[in-house]
Amino acid sequence: MAPETTASTALFTDHYELTMLGSALADDTGSRPCVFEVFARRLPSGRRYGVVAGTGRLLDAIADFRFGDAELAQLESTAVVDADTLAWLADYSFSGEIDGYPEGELFFPGSPVLTVRGTFADAVVLETLALSILNHDSAIASAAARMAGAANGRPIIEMGGRRTHEAAAVAAARASYLAGFATTSNLEAGRRYGIPTRGTVAHAFMLLHDSEEQAFRAQVEKMGTDTTLLVDTYDITAGIETAVRVAGPELGAIRIDSGDVGVLARKAREQLDSLGARDTRIVVSGDLDEHAIAALRAEPVDAYGVGTSVVTGSGAPTAGMVYKLVEVDGRPVAKRSTHKESRGGHKRVLRRHKPTGTALEEFVYPAGTDPERGEHDVEPQIPLARAGVPVDGLPSLDDGRARLRRALVSLPWEGLKLSPGDPAVPTVFG
Amino acid sequence: MAPETTASTALFTDHYELTMLGSALADDTGSRPCVFEVFARRLPSGRRYGVVAGTGRLLDAIADFRFGDAELAQLESTAVVDADTLAWLADYSFSGEIDGYPEGELFFPGSPVLTVRGTFADAVVLETLALSILNHDSAIASAAARMAGAANGRPIIEMGGRRTHEAAAVAAARASYLAGFATTSNLEAGRRYGIPTRGTVAHAFMLLHDSEEQAFRAQVEKMGTDTTLLVDTYDITAGIETAVRVAGPELGAIRIDSGDVGVLARKAREQLDSLGARDTRIVVSGDLDEHAIAALRAEPVDAYGVGTSVVTGSGAPTAGMVYKLVEVDGRPVAKRSTHKESRGGHKRVLRRHKPTGTALEEFVYPAGTDPERGEHDVEPQIPLARAGVPVDGLPSLDDGRARLRRALVSLPWEGLKLSPGDPAVPTVFG
Repeated sequence: MAPETTASTALFTDHYELTMLGSALADDTGSRPCVFEVFARRLPSGRRYGVVAGTGRLLDAIADFRFGDAELAQLESTAVVDADTLAWLADYSFSGEIDGYPEGELFFPGSPVLTVRGTFADAVVLETLALSILNHDSAIASAAARMAGAANGRPIIEMGGRRTHEAAAVAAARASYLAGFATTSNLEAGRRYGIPTRGTVAHAFMLLHDSEEQAFRAQVEKMGTDTTLLVDTYDITAGIETAVRVAGPELGAIRIDSGDVGVLARKAREQLDSLGARDTRIVVSGDLDEHAIAALRAEPVDAYGVGTSVVTGSGAPTAGMVYKLVEVDGRPVAKRSTHKESRGGHKRVLRRHKPTGTALEEFVYPAGTDPERGEHDVEPQIPLARAGVPVDGLPSLDDGRARLRRALVSLPWEGLKLSPGDPAVPTVFG
Repeated sequence: MAPETTASTALFTDHYELTMLGSALADDTGSRPCVFEVFARRLPSGRRYGVVAGTGRLLDAIADFRFGDAELAQLESTAVVDADTLAWLADYSFSGEIDGYPEGELFFPGSPVLTVRGTFADAVVLETLALSILNHDSAIASAAARMAGAANGRPIIEMGGRRTHEAAAVAAARASYLAGFATTSNLEAGRRYGIPTRGTVAHAFMLLHDSEEQAFRAQVEKMGTDTTLLVDTYDITAGIETAVRVAGPELGAIRIDSGDVGVLARKAREQLDSLGARDTRIVVSGDLDEHAIAALRAEPVDAYGVGTSVVTGSGAPTAGMVYKLVEVDGRPVAKRSTHKESRGGHKRVLRRHKPTGTALEEFVYPAGTDPERGEHDVEPQIPLARAGVPVDGLPSLDDGRARLRRALVSLPWEGLKLSPGDPAVPTVFG
């Protein structure tokens, strides 16, 4: 079996892209200048906004989208394409232009979150890679932003890596952090993206020891008193009593991972206070989603651990984005047969705002036209790559975090509600 | 930014596993012999069976679970663990024993799909990696098996890579193939696992050309008449007429990707037959799931393309498996505080069957006891690794496909229904 990892991203691609390419090279249509747009036809049911994530990962992945010996040998041995196409792929590196919404920007139905310009051949091969990354990462960020909003400033640790593919876990940690989570449990996300990682012990550590007290002693001995003791292995009240006895009132935190965490947090706070551990924080985890977090807002909870719900997009595990050819040789093109048609033509966007800064609409208009611009209108798209090379000074992950905080403040207040509703601002096609 | 790929899987790990490890090494509990079990407390709501997938990937990933210089440097610079623990990790390779359900085997609530024996230190660090792989791959295979059943022998091509993380896409193609899909669009799945890949063109190829006819001609010129022409870009009836005119009645297939595909398939069949293209197959795609596939059973459809629904587990994107410490030094252990408790002790399984071969129950019993065995009872668990090394002759992916076909035949008939219901056989704890 071939190794699981490869430096090239070129085969994260659907077979049909290369067969299309082969045919288009053969009849010379492959050299036609084209515009492809990535957009979501709709938000997941009831969601009021989406959050763009993955753009940074995508630009890295495009740089690694090269067909080396291993990739070419595979395509040759399975006869996916012919010799002419193989020769073209051997020399391929993307040389077109990319514009798009920076990470942390909001998107709405029809927002062109990515615009790829280049020859058909150059741009068509990136379809699957672009969609995989943007659909996954944006789905996670869109869910995570609702959770961060519900947490209302209390920190959330992302701990869902075990509930999703091992590599998706790393990207999910990144997208959650972008969307306002404080930390992650995922060590590879720490290595790859510099995201702060956190963790202390699981129930296995408690059960390994002959008693809860011995487990707490071992942990405090090693990690100091500013650690988080897991108090719900046996009896929570007894666990908290033992925890404070072992660590003293300077104990950093306790974690409750099961049961009705709201009730338990209240009782725990009273007990901790009565034991003099007034600064000991309470961390809760266990099947929390944005609604559970919101329901805990009035409870004395200091931090949340969130797993399954965030890495699976809280009911919407993919963002539903598509990569559509909208322009060939300067003329708009669009599928016409059914309800799935899209609007042809290269588009640009203005997000219109009231003078107060509140967003009014997502105005999507044909590139080359010049709509009236209000003083408070902004263009969400920024240049991402020119002549195939990422532009200088692209926003960092921390820039994305800051951008999202600002963007959420700009939404009409009902746009931040967790309940099902319409998109926070309408998309208007000019 | 560090590269996206790494040969080591060691940091696909939650922070707390290494901090637990550090504490357990310090107080010598880390050397205690332990048994960890992986199981799902329940199936996704209404599902009647689960399908184990990922075991093969997991064994490969465990072989690559080594802490090299890059991993150690990261742990040191972020102070996740101390020098003693780093030294231990530098020498680490798993040296314990693993038994488990082979890929393609069914599982039910409480089925111990994986049993890991070793010292606490040896086994605890594998938790996240094992769960990520098994939870993801089993979720996909469990959904895909229902789709393959609904397709009732008609081939399904997996084409959902663009709707999930780019690396998850490869694993999803593998899990779908294991569960009975015929092919995949994902080229990396072809390279890595030898899964047959398929694809022809997207709507972009149609729109690139000045007319539908020119696009069809270009495709037939390059790929021959035994190709699949996409006929729903403009008007489907006109598209089919043009397709047969260009390719002749020996045209391999047409694909319809939108609209009411049942009605459209029936009309297309009539039209193809009237044009003499009686052997031209009809491929349908576009937001199909197991229910849509089942609804098309009476229609003249020859193959299905399935994307989003399979890579997202059709509503259940994770299998909900947990990795629990169940035995320390030969004594059973279990969390006790709440509803989440698990059954302590190392367990074995007999799947009991009627003389007819129909499965009766999943009988889970304490290892070391010797329950009465019927002639038709089988043990789902097989040895997977001894002294850390995969055993010889482990089942292949094709073996897993065959195993699943046999296993599904063994279910009581109501176990194969798509409608929500109870698990197909009860789990009985002995």
